[in-house]
Amino acid sequence: MNGVKIIEIKKSVLKENENDANELRKFLKEKKVYLLNLMSSPGSGKTTTLISLLNKLKEKYRIAVMEADIDSDVDAIKIKKETGVESIQLHTGGMCHLDSYMTRQGLSELDLDNLDLIILENVGNLVCPAEFDTGASSNAMILSVPEGDDKPLKYPLIFTVSDLVIINKIDTLPVFNFDMEACKKYIYDRNKNATIIPISAKNGDGIDALATHISKLIDNWTII
Amino acid sequence: MNGVKIIEIKKSVLKENENDANELRKFLKEKKVYLLNLMSSPGSGKTTTLISLLNKLKEKYRIAVMEADIDSDVDAIKIKKETGVESIQLHTGGMCHLDSYMTRQGLSELDLDNLDLIILENVGNLVCPAEFDTGASSNAMILSVPEGDDKPLKYPLIFTVSDLVIINKIDTLPVFNFDMEACKKYIYDRNKNATIIPISAKNGDGIDALATHISKLIDNWTII
Repeated sequence: MNGVKIIEIKKSVLKENENDANELRKFLKEKKVYLLNLMSSPGSGKTTTLISLLNKLKEKYRIAVMEADIDSDVDAIKIKKETGVESIQLHTGGMCHLDSYMTRQGLSELDLDNLDLIILENVGNLVCPAEFDTGASSNAMILSVPEGDDKPLKYPLIFTVSDLVIINKIDTLPVFNFDMEACKKYIYDRNKNATIIPISAKNGDGIDALATHISKLIDNWTII
Repeated sequence: MNGVKIIEIKKSVLKENENDANELRKFLKEKKVYLLNLMSSPGSGKTTTLISLLNKLKEKYRIAVMEADIDSDVDAIKIKKETGVESIQLHTGGMCHLDSYMTRQGLSELDLDNLDLIILENVGNLVCPAEFDTGASSNAMILSVPEGDDKPLKYPLIFTVSDLVIINKIDTLPVFNFDMEACKKYIYDRNKNATIIPISAKNGDGIDALATHISKLIDNWTII
């Protein structure tokens, strides 16, 4: 299947996701592997953003990508083809989110001793993924301009738990009625420490700033 | 609160959602009320589409709107202000979908004897709402051009259960790499009987066709 590994993940029988997530985070820190949980709505450009980002970071770091999807492998194939970065597909079997147990099932397929960064592309959904700690080192999310500047009002939790908010498709700002300053205010109202980086994955605007920010996250994670 | 009623809905303790949904559908048919369950991703333009549609239909039919949202009332206020149509807000308290029990809680606030059409704007989410029968007469969904033509591959269930797929924001086709014919094929692969109506809620393209289609649904529902 185009060299992409597909994992059918199962839901945890444990109720203690929070504890398990904290343990997983600690384990990854000891392993010096940074796990970034990337969330967004469907169609916000997660995969295209990842491709641009991986092509900036892959010379400096050893990277793998875990693509969670309900039932397809198009993203993992695309990532591998366009960046050469190792990419595995996690099939959630209809589930709307990942928890730490499901994340572990993906990690068990990767060689953690030879990785610096793992990016987990969560299921496209602004609701459920925000409710479950995956054990990631940090959470990032993408909001795209066509979705509208009011999303932090309607989906508050995901903006509260995301340390990094990437605003994608800024090349389409002339076409949409999107108030960037209002949107930033709504985001800071949910998380005053959020880092907000506007980008266009399509034309490359902002990708250098994004790569620099993520490099700092990785470097701080492994030296402390 | 701007004259908009807000209902804090609770999850059903019953497991038998499917039976309850069928009973609700039968009850609504006897009442000659058509309930349309409208689903989509966040930011696909559900509210803007509804405003255009309601302004076409409100002279002919007695209509109410139930706006489900995790935690805001901006949509219900906007609908009421821009169309004059009765609009209530259902707060899901963080839940990612509606089931028939939750739908009933909204309906109990409406005067069913004096309504022909109720539109339920479900939570913005392509995953969970598709899994729960709300008891609606039929399901409709909106896919917007910026989300991409591949969404029926990634979120198959919602396209399988939707009888009507509205493709919104066609005014932005020149800006995005969206293959309309491929998208239609993917949709028909999920549901060969789907009705697909491309529109631009922004400039009004396709709204007449959409209003005509929904009028037929209502008229057929009440005469049989």
